Amino acid sequence: MRITKYSDYALRILIFLEAQPKGRLTTIAELSEIYAVSSNHIRVIVHKLGKLGYIKNIQGKGGGIMLAHDANDISIGDVIRNTENDFHIVECFNPDTATVCPIAKACKLKGVLHKAMQAFLDTLDEYTLADLTTNKTSILKQLDFKKLPTHTRH
Amino acid sequence: MRITKYSDYALRILIFLEAQPKGRLTTIAELSEIYAVSSNHIRVIVHKLGKLGYIKNIQGKGGGIMLAHDANDISIGDVIRNTENDFHIVECFNPDTATVCPIAKACKLKGVLHKAMQAFLDTLDEYTLADLTTNKTSILKQLDFKKLPTHTRH
Repeated sequence: MRITKYSDYALRILIFLEAQPKGRLTTIAELSEIYAVSSNHIRVIVHKLGKLGYIKNIQGKGGGIMLAHDANDISIGDVIRNTENDFHIVECFNPDTATVCPIAKACKLKGVLHKAMQAFLDTLDEYTLADLTTNKTSILKQLDFKKLPTHTRH
Repeated sequence: MRITKYSDYALRILIFLEAQPKGRLTTIAELSEIYAVSSNHIRVIVHKLGKLGYIKNIQGKGGGIMLAHDANDISIGDVIRNTENDFHIVECFNPDTATVCPIAKACKLKGVLHKAMQAFLDTLDEYTLADLTTNKTSILKQLDFKKLPTHTRH
């Protein structure tokens, strides 16, 4: 059982952004270096997080990325809902393959798995990005933040 | 977000076994035909379900597979726990990669995802195989059961 790497890194990026000193912007290059993931991969996720309204990109010299909202207003359940491609936990959840299984129409498993998935998301709805980053100092310490390149502060 | 095909088919096999007329045995060949999955794949899952004690294999002429327990005693949560390879929902749940993420030691996401996964499994624990098969007649009707080959009854 997994969530996608996409959602995983989306959450890591949001956590990093919130943990930074107030006003500090970051860049795709920095996120790529920190999480050891290709800048292309980070760029795709950052673009999506921008489209979803979670982050904003300050253009121009000294520009960079920052959260677009207070961390208290970013629900972890919503982030997962928005970044997972789908919640087709088994084949019959996917409209394209919903009737492939010969017992699909009579099967009660789908309803039970749907309820379980809802319980998973309901639990995540109890938390915001702020709840995940009450220990900003520890997070920055883990990153050995002083070694990171000095970057623009706004 | 997915559970493995392995768990999916394990559940489908258990549902099929419970839905059958009392005393009727089935075979790997029949399960392979019904679910349109290779008999090798079904054999692996049936073997595992046997090792886990969910089903028993009646050897010899006219032999076949049947449930080893009353469907009321087979928890859906337990089946998923036993058939999923792991619950490494993100990288840091896997002991082999637990420290790859640079913020792993300070990150609170792992605890939150663990709680959400527990809520998922807790929901499945509320259901047994019997709850999924209260409509045996409908399940067999879906399978056009009369067209299936007559098989040994014990």
